[in-house]
Amino acid sequence: MKRLAIFGATGSVGASTLDLVARNPERYRVSVLTAGKDWRRLAELARTFRPEHVVIADETAFADLAEALAGEPVTVSAGAAALESVAREPADLVVAAIVGAAGLKPTLAALESGIPVALANKEALVCAGGLMTATAARTGAALLPIDSEHNAIFQVLEDKSRVSRIVLTASGGPFRALSRQEMSAVTPAQAVKHPTWSMGAKISIDSATLMNKGLELIEALHLFGVRAEQLGVLVHPQSLVHGLVEYVDGSVLAQLGPADMRVPIAHAMAWPERIATPVERLDLARIGRLEFEEADRERFPALALAEAALAAGQCRPCVLNAANEVAVAAFLDGRIGFLDIAAVVAETLEALPARRLDTLEDVFETDRQARASAQQYVTRVKQTSFAARRVAG
Amino acid sequence: MKRLAIFGATGSVGASTLDLVARNPERYRVSVLTAGKDWRRLAELARTFRPEHVVIADETAFADLAEALAGEPVTVSAGAAALESVAREPADLVVAAIVGAAGLKPTLAALESGIPVALANKEALVCAGGLMTATAARTGAALLPIDSEHNAIFQVLEDKSRVSRIVLTASGGPFRALSRQEMSAVTPAQAVKHPTWSMGAKISIDSATLMNKGLELIEALHLFGVRAEQLGVLVHPQSLVHGLVEYVDGSVLAQLGPADMRVPIAHAMAWPERIATPVERLDLARIGRLEFEEADRERFPALALAEAALAAGQCRPCVLNAANEVAVAAFLDGRIGFLDIAAVVAETLEALPARRLDTLEDVFETDRQARASAQQYVTRVKQTSFAARRVAG
Repeated sequence: MKRLAIFGATGSVGASTLDLVARNPERYRVSVLTAGKDWRRLAELARTFRPEHVVIADETAFADLAEALAGEPVTVSAGAAALESVAREPADLVVAAIVGAAGLKPTLAALESGIPVALANKEALVCAGGLMTATAARTGAALLPIDSEHNAIFQVLEDKSRVSRIVLTASGGPFRALSRQEMSAVTPAQAVKHPTWSMGAKISIDSATLMNKGLELIEALHLFGVRAEQLGVLVHPQSLVHGLVEYVDGSVLAQLGPADMRVPIAHAMAWPERIATPVERLDLARIGRLEFEEADRERFPALALAEAALAAGQCRPCVLNAANEVAVAAFLDGRIGFLDIAAVVAETLEALPARRLDTLEDVFETDRQARASAQQYVTRVKQTSFAARRVAG
Repeated sequence: MKRLAIFGATGSVGASTLDLVARNPERYRVSVLTAGKDWRRLAELARTFRPEHVVIADETAFADLAEALAGEPVTVSAGAAALESVAREPADLVVAAIVGAAGLKPTLAALESGIPVALANKEALVCAGGLMTATAARTGAALLPIDSEHNAIFQVLEDKSRVSRIVLTASGGPFRALSRQEMSAVTPAQAVKHPTWSMGAKISIDSATLMNKGLELIEALHLFGVRAEQLGVLVHPQSLVHGLVEYVDGSVLAQLGPADMRVPIAHAMAWPERIATPVERLDLARIGRLEFEEADRERFPALALAEAALAAGQCRPCVLNAANEVAVAAFLDGRIGFLDIAAVVAETLEALPARRLDTLEDVFETDRQARASAQQYVTRVKQTSFAARRVAG
């Protein structure tokens, strides 16, 4: 019986994880459930899965959550410190599915306590990959990627020393075939409609800009310990091949599967064993063909920015990530346009000098500076766009 | 430094193996070279690679070979007993690339001596898979598949107990799109022109009838210890994806690579490590699409016959293989037509009763009976075809 601590239980990865727990009650029980703001859903999940601890990140929701769970045999707490504290509670696997840099501290706390982590929170690795992998190596805690592409690589990776290339596939997002001019007019509602994956808003926008694939390259560098130039991206609109590893002998190992997050999550939950899932089986004869193309870095400059940050290392990935989080939030709020997202990231990267990140404090300081800088650009872009629209009108 | 004993050195697998030896002189040396009839080429290879032993299967070629190698520091012998004897000489890997049931005894001799075998000779497993795998298990000798599809499965297979399905790809051969009527008129020269692989005549004909894929299913049953109903075939005309393993969680692991036998051979030679090869790297963006379709068992009845033999077990695969060897030889000699190959195999399977094969003697007895029976059908088909052509003319 494995005890799962699920951080980010109300998101799409949390839902897939709980679906698998419900189907395998003899193998898994839930020890911790956390959510950001949605205390109603969290209370509901707590009554169904009966964890020992629930935490809501938003402290203003604590009273509502506590009242909703009054009389239940569960401890209720709130806030960042509580998240970090329950991450150290005994568990057999922490599922780290909090979106953004906010997930960094609880994930690191679990690894420090030697608890294996199934990681969906790519931003944690982008910001502090070196610290995370060093901590995992020190305590011996396994770091199992849930991100479908990295899970693919993890499944087929035999021997890092003989790898010549690791390739992550990219669906290309909803705007794969759009011109830059067409992209300038897209709305948040269009951008969150991902063609193959059902996911939250932040990652859907990142998929539309291809920033997601750039973040994943940085994630892969840390997870698989390869050099930046060994990492590549291949556009595959069907999202059925998730990742490929090429060895020095010319052999390529790949992982395929339906675009259903329950496949990589089940892998991480059961590793090194496997559990059955109810997902549709891949029928290649019916599918007929798998399609591939090069990524277009002219139309999708966010990918090029991320690749430059990957190659430069130091604080660059952290700055990239912070600026992107700010820009995506501004786009979702209707404050800037779709093409402005990459522009804000580029401006922020130019504004902040390169520096080493040796401690978690360095990471948070850089993250804070980058967010402040990005906010300035968002404001400026907003004014410029407003001015441009007035001129155009 | 690994010592390689190469059985079938003058064929295409032998040539690929020696190409890799020549490129890695610090890792490999050749201890044994054998050939069927081509003593001139064998003498040439012996002078280049300086093995300790050379054997020619055809005893009538012994004098020529011995004369050609007079004064060289190498023992020269001939015949089936000599092949079996050198298979027991100390070596780090036996490359078993003799075509047909003729390769069975030396391969088994190597496994009995505890020598790892890189197996290209699928007929050995088809005829006596149970004996081969039991022997390998008893002595602890590794049995490494070189057949590209099986090598693919071997590379990606993690845990047999959680496999739901193993799929071997098939190019579909040169007649993939032909009707039965069009196939009735094809010549041996057309049939040996394989669209993606450069191989010997026997296996090229087997690829054209899809019997090769049927033999490979039987091979896979023994190599991977799965049930017949877990094995499947997927037509993939490009021969870039070689094999796929589906697990109970819906995840599919696949091996891809250029259609160059040096990739699987290098894998078997270096396993569990890898060595570099000069093969072209797979560029999926340039290739653009990978295509798949169902196999058509109406137009390719040899595949259905092999699948029935796979399911029935006992002597059926051995009878299938013997009848097929006879029929393919008759087709290559112009004695029967292309469609007659499967007809001869079907007639032979019907004529011979099912029986268990417990010993190597049982195997050889069944092989002999099936060949005699198949020869009778070849003679009858020839007469019928001759009569049919007279009527048609």
